[in-house]
Amino acid sequence: MAVDYDSQEYLDKVDAYWRAANYLSVGQLFLKDNPLLKGDLTAEDVKVKPIGHWGTIVPQNFIYAHLNRAILKYDLNMFYIEGSGHGGQVMVSNAYLDGSYTERYPRITRDEQGMQRLFKQFSFPGGVASHAAPETPGSIHEGGELGYSLSHGVGAILDNPDVIAAVEIGDGESETGPLAASWFSSKFINPIHDGAVLPIIQVNGFKISNPTILSRMSDADLTKYYQGMGWNPRFVETDGSDHKKAHQDMAKAIDASVEEIKAIQKNARDNNDDSLPVWPLIVLRAPKGWTGPKKDLNGDPIENSFRAHQVPIPVDANHMEHKDMLVDWMKSYKPEELFNEDGTPKEVLSEVEPKGDKRMAMNPITNGGIHPEPLKMDDVRKFAVPESDLKDNSKQRMDMEVMSHFAGDIMKENPTSFRITGPDETQSNRLWGLWDASKRQWMEDIHEPNDENVAHSGQVIDSQLSEHQAEGWLEGYVLTGRHGFFASYESFTRVIDSMLTQHYKWLRKAQEQNWRHDYPSLNIINTSTVFQQDHNGYTHQDPGMIGHMAEKGHELVNEYLPADANSLLAVMNKALQSREVINLIVASKHPRTQWFSIDEATELVNNGLGIIPWASNDDGAEPDVVFAAAGTEPTMESLAAITLLHDSFPDLKIRFINVVDLLKLRKKGDDQDNRGLTDEEFDSYFTTDKPVIFAFHGFENTLRGLVYDRHNHNIHFHGYRENGDITTPFDMRVLNELDRFHLAKDAINATSFAEKAGEFSQHMDDMVAKHNQYIRDEGTDLPEVNAWQWKDIK
Amino acid sequence: MAVDYDSQEYLDKVDAYWRAANYLSVGQLFLKDNPLLKGDLTAEDVKVKPIGHWGTIVPQNFIYAHLNRAILKYDLNMFYIEGSGHGGQVMVSNAYLDGSYTERYPRITRDEQGMQRLFKQFSFPGGVASHAAPETPGSIHEGGELGYSLSHGVGAILDNPDVIAAVEIGDGESETGPLAASWFSSKFINPIHDGAVLPIIQVNGFKISNPTILSRMSDADLTKYYQGMGWNPRFVETDGSDHKKAHQDMAKAIDASVEEIKAIQKNARDNNDDSLPVWPLIVLRAPKGWTGPKKDLNGDPIENSFRAHQVPIPVDANHMEHKDMLVDWMKSYKPEELFNEDGTPKEVLSEVEPKGDKRMAMNPITNGGIHPEPLKMDDVRKFAVPESDLKDNSKQRMDMEVMSHFAGDIMKENPTSFRITGPDETQSNRLWGLWDASKRQWMEDIHEPNDENVAHSGQVIDSQLSEHQAEGWLEGYVLTGRHGFFASYESFTRVIDSMLTQHYKWLRKAQEQNWRHDYPSLNIINTSTVFQQDHNGYTHQDPGMIGHMAEKGHELVNEYLPADANSLLAVMNKALQSREVINLIVASKHPRTQWFSIDEATELVNNGLGIIPWASNDDGAEPDVVFAAAGTEPTMESLAAITLLHDSFPDLKIRFINVVDLLKLRKKGDDQDNRGLTDEEFDSYFTTDKPVIFAFHGFENTLRGLVYDRHNHNIHFHGYRENGDITTPFDMRVLNELDRFHLAKDAINATSFAEKAGEFSQHMDDMVAKHNQYIRDEGTDLPEVNAWQWKDIK
Ligand SMILES: Cc1ncc(C[n+]2csc(CCOP(=O)(O)OP(=O)(O)O)c2C)c(N)n1
Ligand SMILES: Cc1ncc(C[n+]2csc(CCOP(=O)(O)OP(=O)(O)O)c2C)c(N)n1
Ligand SMILES: [Mg+2]
Ligand SMILES: [Mg+2]
Repeated sequence: MAVDYDSQEYLDKVDAYWRAANYLSVGQLFLKDNPLLKGDLTAEDVKVKPIGHWGTIVPQNFIYAHLNRAILKYDLNMFYIEGSGHGGQVMVSNAYLDGSYTERYPRITRDEQGMQRLFKQFSFPGGVASHAAPETPGSIHEGGELGYSLSHGVGAILDNPDVIAAVEIGDGESETGPLAASWFSSKFINPIHDGAVLPIIQVNGFKISNPTILSRMSDADLTKYYQGMGWNPRFVETDGSDHKKAHQDMAKAIDASVEEIKAIQKNARDNNDDSLPVWPLIVLRAPKGWTGPKKDLNGDPIENSFRAHQVPIPVDANHMEHKDMLVDWMKSYKPEELFNEDGTPKEVLSEVEPKGDKRMAMNPITNGGIHPEPLKMDDVRKFAVPESDLKDNSKQRMDMEVMSHFAGDIMKENPTSFRITGPDETQSNRLWGLWDASKRQWMEDIHEPNDENVAHSGQVIDSQLSEHQAEGWLEGYVLTGRHGFFASYESFTRVIDSMLTQHYKWLRKAQEQNWRHDYPSLNIINTSTVFQQDHNGYTHQDPGMIGHMAEKGHELVNEYLPADANSLLAVMNKALQSREVINLIVASKHPRTQWFSIDEATELVNNGLGIIPWASNDDGAEPDVVFAAAGTEPTMESLAAITLLHDSFPDLKIRFINVVDLLKLRKKGDDQDNRGLTDEEFDSYFTTDKPVIFAFHGFENTLRGLVYDRHNHNIHFHGYRENGDITTPFDMRVLNELDRFHLAKDAINATSFAEKAGEFSQHMDDMVAKHNQYIRDEGTDLPEVNAWQWKDIK
Repeated sequence: MAVDYDSQEYLDKVDAYWRAANYLSVGQLFLKDNPLLKGDLTAEDVKVKPIGHWGTIVPQNFIYAHLNRAILKYDLNMFYIEGSGHGGQVMVSNAYLDGSYTERYPRITRDEQGMQRLFKQFSFPGGVASHAAPETPGSIHEGGELGYSLSHGVGAILDNPDVIAAVEIGDGESETGPLAASWFSSKFINPIHDGAVLPIIQVNGFKISNPTILSRMSDADLTKYYQGMGWNPRFVETDGSDHKKAHQDMAKAIDASVEEIKAIQKNARDNNDDSLPVWPLIVLRAPKGWTGPKKDLNGDPIENSFRAHQVPIPVDANHMEHKDMLVDWMKSYKPEELFNEDGTPKEVLSEVEPKGDKRMAMNPITNGGIHPEPLKMDDVRKFAVPESDLKDNSKQRMDMEVMSHFAGDIMKENPTSFRITGPDETQSNRLWGLWDASKRQWMEDIHEPNDENVAHSGQVIDSQLSEHQAEGWLEGYVLTGRHGFFASYESFTRVIDSMLTQHYKWLRKAQEQNWRHDYPSLNIINTSTVFQQDHNGYTHQDPGMIGHMAEKGHELVNEYLPADANSLLAVMNKALQSREVINLIVASKHPRTQWFSIDEATELVNNGLGIIPWASNDDGAEPDVVFAAAGTEPTMESLAAITLLHDSFPDLKIRFINVVDLLKLRKKGDDQDNRGLTDEEFDSYFTTDKPVIFAFHGFENTLRGLVYDRHNHNIHFHGYRENGDITTPFDMRVLNELDRFHLAKDAINATSFAEKAGEFSQHMDDMVAKHNQYIRDEGTDLPEVNAWQWKDIK
């Protein structure tokens, strides 16, 4: 017999389910034993230090229960994102009720003992987090740092046409920059080949200790706000008293929204109509701390107040005076109607729960993706700069441009599982080869020829000027098993420093869960780098992302500084096949001389670093001086310094080392990282005491920290010294003493040739002086600098 | 005779002024000589590498000209913020026209030679930036990193009731998170005691290479969007062809907006009516690249296309083939009507220019503030923890709470020049003492008792959950000569990493301008730190801001890690009096034992670090082991380790060093920083070879980098090792081996006592094991850990 999902009888079951979730959520907060409240509640039953969040819970459980109803009614493929993330009980309780949790964690059985364990482990040492953390089944979004829920949801449904991401969003969260900008996502979702998001904003009125801006706005203003941004809001409002009506209203709002989504998609797909839709959205006004204690001991309101945010009543193992408040509260959910004597859930609950993979906690999209597959990639050598073009100043290439043909080819091979995101910079970053394969996805009107390379369908998404969105979308995409990279100006990727930290943390904890499948790496290309932003000036000059990601340790981050196009190709070839790491790739976009054959480059990338024979004349013996370089300009300037030195001091024994994989320099075992060189290996490259002139793309402190403990302490660091300006390209290096003249002078004076180097040093100083004058007169670099041509020194 | 600002005659003069600004702006882009285009344009006249932005210029000059008109018509106190910041010519050209520029830079005279210099210097080595940089008169906002224009404008007008900030905002910029969230600023501006902002959105249709989202939205949708957020938009629209009509429309829109602002303020001030106003806003739809070349050499549109973004035509000293395009373009502004033969501006321009401080470029608010004054501060000792409460486990204090009484007192003394901002965390961060002095400013409805400590007037602004807004407001506030601090969770201040970088860069360049007054420091308190976020879990644990700001060098950043309340007081006392630096203060909010008297603390802060006599027994001789600690938990655990060691090894000679001012550790002269210790001084603290057990609040790589080059390389680093969880407070230290047991074990084994230390080491291991078990059973820390009581070892 068909179920009548709209009947009062059915809604009563939804209500029962909701109460069960609420009961479990409160239990997790306070109890470590006696989960069914049999007999008296004693101090032994209660946690010493109840920790967690209450205010957000019940409206979320309400949403979750109604989403379950919609999944059953419409046979949806849906999953849940918890935006106002500090209510970890929500996803745990619901996964426990529908059995998902026990499938993942068999210890947590669906009976009294399991419930006791469920309660105790929550927010407890050795237990589980109080957020929707990686250990939470069904979660791809932890929400510890607020603001990214909608971006993540949208990233997940791109190229997943059948999926709906139900994204719960806090009213406080809505005040953050990233969330406020993420409403513009509506302009990027293609109704034909992407899925849908259903945002549900929990306007509960409060955040930690403040009211929320949205909650004090009228429905009329909220309507304008969301409509203005291209969404169709539906309101469900309850002061918390009339549960029956709240259920009816919520069921209606969700039904109407789901039907609207289906209608949009049907029209789009049947008629191949990819015009910009107006997507539905739900505003749920329900009190913070709904169904919880009404007043605190001072008589001040808890429900519908900021006071509901965390643990709302002062009950713990050492403070049992007010235990009745807790017991009354928990019993208000009528657990006897919900659980049997032995703690097993009553049949009534099961009737309103989706089954199998339809359960939101078990939707495969939340665990590595629906059809996760490695990328199809052609042989990278096809895209390489040929050997005939290497080391030739007249055959310069733009590394990013060269690489873009490889990326474009991957796009063609993987039309629904490879995307590139960025903040309006794809063209500026010279990924021009992409346009042969795809355009930029953008659902608003297109006016050619004023616009170029935008289309309603495309694998690049960079038409919103927001690093947060570009990165958030990509995270959602890779966490659901697909591939891609984010390419952006080096300085402004720092806008998302913290998002990378959060993704890192996610990876670290996800790895501990053996039921979690892995997913593709998150690839971040920093281009238009500090040494290539001479023309944009000082605000655009910052290589600090390197230090930011290096200090975290634990082998979850790779930092690549390819010196030329083939190195960049080799890096991308590796990075796009890697899993569950963050690859930070610092790449050049300006025309530069090319150095390495694709085979040399591949070996360099595989080893992480290498001695470059054609730029060394130490013949394997101890050199007089070691040059080391990490980065494009550092490599180029080191090589130029080597020519200068070799011309003047042909007897000087030089070794040149190119470092591509920076963290190889970390001492093996330091920072919980075993990939680095042992001391022995390090010494074999850098010697134990010879002068090392280390030209480095980043801040010197990062590098000093990495090599702190090595035998060789005769390292001369030449990194970015926070000296910048609008100036010429070469002057950026001079300002930071990373140019050939400073390097060569520093090198020679560190060797035994120093005594004979007076004239040479003077010449270097003169060249710097000449440069300084010339650029001020002419506005461009010295011809001899631009025309410099490498000659092998061997 | 009264001027008729509305007459066509007047608008024609505004048009002339606008053309003059446009002419100068194009000239700056391309020319280095022959500024008045006398005779033929030769290669010598043109820059080798024209660099800069074109697309944004003309709409901005249009806005600027009309703001000038409004200033004259209404006698306004107004200044300009350039949001779509890459058109540095705008503010330079307009300042040049009204004479401000020449007052600041007398070399740049208002004649042909001055104009030549003006043109040449722009975006040229040794010249001026292509943004509204610190060298630009009238600028407090550079806009290199997009998104903060409105936050800065709002910060500037708080407590400046007579000022209007005219904030130009890009349509691309509007897509960023920070900008999208900053519309909610409307909910925080008090019409009685704050000034006003007039946002003017330049919807020119494009960004770097994409169309913009706003530009493809209908007026109806834009209206809803802005109205929804509490603004009243007025539209001025031009396809670029009818300049006359555009002037008329713009004049009307600005007049209406100014009158609306005045009406709101008059009503509010006359009637003491501080209800939430709806502020005006202007949407200017005008083509990107307006008045510039229409088509490129391929016949593709430039005007009204992304192609107008940067330098739109291929003319430079080496490419003069199309010089006619440039000449025709520049002559289209009819320079002969605007400048005399000798290059001096014609009288007609002066008639539409404000004079003296009414010129936006000379408004004192943009140069250190209108009435800048140092803070009035009472003797910090009044707020100190008394000596009787020191070192006593039963007399713990919350450092932030103690400090908040000092801050509250400063609020009372400086009711219109001291503000505290934060993202909904003031209460959580335990700044409870503030509530005696002030409430949180918030203009929406207030519902007590559900709300607490919110009011329409208040010196705290933390009721928007946005780090970007809180930090942006504070920047605007201090850049206009007032004082304050931003207090936030340590982990989530990283959301604004990049804003701090940009402020740092601003400071660095502003210092080079001798006409720029200085301004108060930007004070950032990182609290709820990694070691106090046990209860929120791993996402909330990140001390990386320390490394982020440390690596920049140049003495523009101070990093303070006060170990107790009196140290925090002494730090704040110093920080709030400092000028033009960024003070990063890592502070504790949890109850902790107190260590230093206010005089000891003051000395520690002044020296940056110190040997603590009562925790040392080396009597000035060489110790066996040095303990060093930077941070609250590091200090506490080091002291606990010292007691453990002293109990077991009374002969062990221990020295304890507390480090408050971290960057004192940097080697004097490194990183362009001279504040650090010389090697001699460093050795006198840390010895040259004795084991140093360094307990550190941040990542170890930062510290390794700072001490890389010291004699003593026997340093054992115990910092944050990116090991976190939901757990107990003490366990956070154990996970990172920063706890007393690990420290003590490491210490003893590094000394000659190691041989006798087997049992002790075992005991330490046992304690760790016991701890691990206990917290998993009980959910709380070992009683002996919590009850630990310091005893002087001397
Ligand atoms: C970026 C960021 N800033 C600050 C916080 C600290 N914080 C945790 S919860 C919270 C309030 C959240 O309010 P809301 O989104 O309304 O959630 P709810 O009311 O459902 O608890 C804040 C400010 C955070 N988690 N992330
Ligand atoms: C945070 C940030 N991301 C990226 C950039 C690179 N960028 C420079 S200009 C620009 C486009 C700006 O467009 P809009 O605000 O519309 O300005 P306008 O059209 O007036 O030039 C971009 C993306 C930046 N400056 N800041
Ligand atoms: Mg809320
Ligand atoms: Mg624009």
